[in-house]
Amino acid sequence: MPDPVSIIGGSGALGFGLAVRLGRAGVPVVIGSRDGGRAQQAAARATAAVPFGSFEGSENAEAARRAELLVLCVPFRSQSETLTNLKAHLRPGQLVVDASVPLAAAISGKATRTIGIWQGSAAQQVEEMVPDGVRVVSALHTVSAARLGDLDHALDEDVLVCGDQRADKERVTALIERIDGLRCVDCGRLEMARLTEQLTPLLIGINIRHKTHAGIRITGLPERV
Amino acid sequence: MPDPVSIIGGSGALGFGLAVRLGRAGVPVVIGSRDGGRAQQAAARATAAVPFGSFEGSENAEAARRAELLVLCVPFRSQSETLTNLKAHLRPGQLVVDASVPLAAAISGKATRTIGIWQGSAAQQVEEMVPDGVRVVSALHTVSAARLGDLDHALDEDVLVCGDQRADKERVTALIERIDGLRCVDCGRLEMARLTEQLTPLLIGINIRHKTHAGIRITGLPERV
Repeated sequence: MPDPVSIIGGSGALGFGLAVRLGRAGVPVVIGSRDGGRAQQAAARATAAVPFGSFEGSENAEAARRAELLVLCVPFRSQSETLTNLKAHLRPGQLVVDASVPLAAAISGKATRTIGIWQGSAAQQVEEMVPDGVRVVSALHTVSAARLGDLDHALDEDVLVCGDQRADKERVTALIERIDGLRCVDCGRLEMARLTEQLTPLLIGINIRHKTHAGIRITGLPERV
Repeated sequence: MPDPVSIIGGSGALGFGLAVRLGRAGVPVVIGSRDGGRAQQAAARATAAVPFGSFEGSENAEAARRAELLVLCVPFRSQSETLTNLKAHLRPGQLVVDASVPLAAAISGKATRTIGIWQGSAAQQVEEMVPDGVRVVSALHTVSAARLGDLDHALDEDVLVCGDQRADKERVTALIERIDGLRCVDCGRLEMARLTEQLTPLLIGINIRHKTHAGIRITGLPERV
């Protein structure tokens, strides 16, 4: 059985969608939430959707302790506060996958716009805030939460992955590609998250105009990248 | 026969690739360059590649007068100077398609990074600089110049189009979709070029890593958008 994965903010749409997809792919998932009760409800919902899956619900701090690989799916508005609260619960060697996007919605603006982050990107803010020895990879900004959560939908799109360590990106790629229909594309160093995070508001705009849940595919790559 | 199109900076790789593709699709093309001789050489090369095409070469200013629809393909480093020089030659009603990208290469930095533009994007800088009544659409940032210029390559990717007037975007879409294998996707207002322009450095990084000429496809759209 693969190592468990903890999803911080796993009761939200993206985190929950990822949880059920990973659970269906045989990965044990700890669903974290600020509220332990809500985490357990989400785990129960995930179990109802994927009865053979392994799901547990717990507060974010406990979830952060439970796995070597964490996925951060909190709204950007709460990212900094969440990381401050988690600081004492993270340990060197852990890998954090940041999926958050600095949408202007975080400051009551539009979800088709972003705000400027001092560090350059949400992922770089995470890197600045995690304890020494905790590594960060950025991914999953172009995958629709609704499509992930709809297990009847056949995914067929790419996940753009940024990070400073090749081995970390390979580990995240191996995890995400357990999910049928997702292909990971290495987009370079973590600072490239400045570019990939901008795709979310672009797709949100396309979704509004075309009443769909769009994704991204990089064309021109060899069959197996 | 369709209306002619002028390509400002048409002797560069992107402009030339676009010229031969449009020429092959039956669109008369005026290739503009700072240097009239270089423009004529480019037109001769284009004619050699597409003997039945209609290509002329002229200085940028003359090229700007010759068509109602212009495509701006100059390196970002030269964008502001080019527009200052063209100001007297543009007239209300013309439509400028901006394909330039504020790569950090413009200030001797990396082509996988961008610089911040005061107006928000290269396209918005164009809009600020053109005379009143000249309209601006942003497009073509994700299409490889090399792939465009290689007429044996079958294109199969999307072109992301931003602009404030729906009719302008439809006109640009109708033009670009004359080229086999390109599909245009409306990405919203011109300010969304802040997002689409960021895709060029992302793709350049992917190209370096994967030794390819990558493009973009938006997934999840209905057959005809």
